[in-house]
Amino acid sequence: MERIKPRTLSGFMELLPEKQQKLERMMQILRDTYSLYGFAPLDTPAIEDAQILLAKGGGETEKQIYRFQKGDSDLALRFDLTVPLAKYVALHCNELAFPFRRYQISKVYRGERAQRGRFREFYQADIDIIGDGKLDILNEAEIPAIIYRVFRGFGLKRFQIRVNNRKILNGFYAMLELSHKSGDIMRTVDKLDKIGAEKVRTILVEDCALTGDQADEILKFIAISGTNEEVLDALEGYSGRNEVFDAGVQELKAVTKNLSAFGVPEENFAVDLTIARGLDYYTGTVYETTLLDHPQIGSVCSGGRYDDLAGYYTERQLPGVGISIGLTRLFYVLDEQGLLNPELPSAPADALVLPMTEDAGAAIALAEQLRSAGIRVQLYGEQKKFKQKMSYCDKLGVPFAVLLGEDELAQGKCSVKNMRTGQQVTVTPEEAAQHIRSTLEDASGPIILEK
Amino acid sequence: MERIKPRTLSGFMELLPEKQQKLERMMQILRDTYSLYGFAPLDTPAIEDAQILLAKGGGETEKQIYRFQKGDSDLALRFDLTVPLAKYVALHCNELAFPFRRYQISKVYRGERAQRGRFREFYQADIDIIGDGKLDILNEAEIPAIIYRVFRGFGLKRFQIRVNNRKILNGFYAMLELSHKSGDIMRTVDKLDKIGAEKVRTILVEDCALTGDQADEILKFIAISGTNEEVLDALEGYSGRNEVFDAGVQELKAVTKNLSAFGVPEENFAVDLTIARGLDYYTGTVYETTLLDHPQIGSVCSGGRYDDLAGYYTERQLPGVGISIGLTRLFYVLDEQGLLNPELPSAPADALVLPMTEDAGAAIALAEQLRSAGIRVQLYGEQKKFKQKMSYCDKLGVPFAVLLGEDELAQGKCSVKNMRTGQQVTVTPEEAAQHIRSTLEDASGPIILEK
Repeated sequence: MERIKPRTLSGFMELLPEKQQKLERMMQILRDTYSLYGFAPLDTPAIEDAQILLAKGGGETEKQIYRFQKGDSDLALRFDLTVPLAKYVALHCNELAFPFRRYQISKVYRGERAQRGRFREFYQADIDIIGDGKLDILNEAEIPAIIYRVFRGFGLKRFQIRVNNRKILNGFYAMLELSHKSGDIMRTVDKLDKIGAEKVRTILVEDCALTGDQADEILKFIAISGTNEEVLDALEGYSGRNEVFDAGVQELKAVTKNLSAFGVPEENFAVDLTIARGLDYYTGTVYETTLLDHPQIGSVCSGGRYDDLAGYYTERQLPGVGISIGLTRLFYVLDEQGLLNPELPSAPADALVLPMTEDAGAAIALAEQLRSAGIRVQLYGEQKKFKQKMSYCDKLGVPFAVLLGEDELAQGKCSVKNMRTGQQVTVTPEEAAQHIRSTLEDASGPIILEK
Repeated sequence: MERIKPRTLSGFMELLPEKQQKLERMMQILRDTYSLYGFAPLDTPAIEDAQILLAKGGGETEKQIYRFQKGDSDLALRFDLTVPLAKYVALHCNELAFPFRRYQISKVYRGERAQRGRFREFYQADIDIIGDGKLDILNEAEIPAIIYRVFRGFGLKRFQIRVNNRKILNGFYAMLELSHKSGDIMRTVDKLDKIGAEKVRTILVEDCALTGDQADEILKFIAISGTNEEVLDALEGYSGRNEVFDAGVQELKAVTKNLSAFGVPEENFAVDLTIARGLDYYTGTVYETTLLDHPQIGSVCSGGRYDDLAGYYTERQLPGVGISIGLTRLFYVLDEQGLLNPELPSAPADALVLPMTEDAGAAIALAEQLRSAGIRVQLYGEQKKFKQKMSYCDKLGVPFAVLLGEDELAQGKCSVKNMRTGQQVTVTPEEAAQHIRSTLEDASGPIILEK
């Protein structure tokens, strides 16, 4: 037979079982945490009508999208989860209760240039809260609590949720009579972390045609720092000059005010006037999240408030707030930085049951009994030498081998061997389940281990 | 702004939140059950090199596949999970421990003609056990136990796992000197349930050019029925005439022998000589699963033993056994038949916390406290009338409303209203968590309710 060399496309993540287990654990934490805040799971098709996906059109998106014909249909793979959400909410708005809270953890597709750490297929883990006409600021205030619980769930402590408000920036630019250039300015200021203040000033003056004074005013403004209280106080100094600005400050205060009630410690949260988020469609609060020891990674969870989710599909005004975690990239980076907990159990089973007698009936019944007690059991029936069986158990990292020979059978017991310590006990099936469960509970740990 | 009418492509399932919750529950049961049997989760890309996916080539597959160019790449969306598994195992065979057990619950794509109940994007929930060179029959014997636990987990009782062995069929056709026609014969016999014995005979004689005697022998053979024991006894009557046949009978006996140890009741299992599975690539045990009260649905979980998983990609012999559940179609059919439990809780939250005072701080802290106790809580901050808030709670089906007014605050308590009974209690936050949890536990039920 002529054979084809097997390969996986570049830019597509495909993990070996041990790593896949860790990624699954992260997804489970995301599902559980999002559910804890009353978000409903949503699943939309990966393929949509290309006209629908490209309603906004233009730019990078259009170049990167996977678009193809099937019969007469012009189809495309989704490149994010926001556009399909907009379509979903517009399509079903009469059947949904608002505010509508949904989470979606799904793959999206972007045919980017292949590059280390860049993926063409990747998971996004999004939440959004959509209001009908209005949406209370309390929803925006809650978002940092959700981000906090997710990242703590992963095992992280050294991270910071950075928050700003686009109204403050827009209002500020209006004070400087630079509203018409605010998009360009924000995109430039967004690069502050990467290129530094001096280069930002150069771009503002040379490319955006600002006066030196205007550029200096902007740099002075975004240099405001300190505790959250100090930053908010400094903002008060600008108040009364622009309504949009004042509204933004009020919103930022509302988001910051109840942090401790939301259980978010001061050290994991910062008001940061340099955050703008490149996307034009945010209109209020904006969020970024950075790992303090790994600033080069950039933001691992971003989002914000928008006033009109689905304007391309419906005249109904649907404001919302949402965040997105680029899960595939985050996982790749955590792994690359050596932050994935190597001790985290990642075996496909808790116990390997080995029949040691001609008739496997008793071993089968034992395996089923352990499973009914919640133990994940692989029954190993291959005709191999004992040593090879043990080595298989070791290779998979299965923590327990359960042996059932004539002696154990005669006593109505089984031998449970702890593969790590080598310790072996001969006990009843009920005791075996208990023994395995209690040892496993001790061994569970966080997915991410900070150094 | 010019608007585009939102729509979802036909043949693509997109559920409202309540139904999505039920599908998610089914997926969780699948993940949990597959894990209980030592299967590791696997996730492969939805897009593969078209050459790889079409290695086997030809037929219906090629017509249905979504295939497209991106740059210089010839790409395609997977149409099943078996071909990607074959590629994965061939590619990583030196890094995997065999037997390799994996489950995958993922979407696959087939551009079939749009038709009610036919999907172009649908979930498959597959397990496979892959051996290196050899694979013990015990693995085949275990499959019915897994199917049984899955369907019982869904809440079903009236289903039957039907098992046969291709070697018995192949050996039987060899006895009749019809081996060269066995593929055609099996495909014909496979239609017995749909078209009846008489039409099968006609096709066998007219299209397959069998003699009347040969056709009668075949119909007599596949008419063998009774208890599993009776069928196996009847098969013994043919023994000693063909080695392949005899091997098949031995395998079928081995698969049947330990059913009670595996916890599978007789009534959920049947040896059925009419089962052949159309696919040429099964070589031993074959499985189908039918819902006894809904035979028109056909098999809802099928699979079998194959001797060579990845021959198109590697010279290594990788035998295996696997089954597949067409989850999207199964869910659609269960829903259509009215079998989804309408009482199953499908609200996105267990409790809606309503701040009733100017300062939301206490309500926020209460919501977080309940969440930390594992209660799924939505904090409702919209400025609405009390009646509207209650109606939102009702519409979502959230079982509890938690009210926090001045009176409750002063006592360090909250009021918990059971939305179904109308009963309201004023209790501490700890008591509230306990109260909600215990009521919820009583309310959990099966996903499927048989009538």
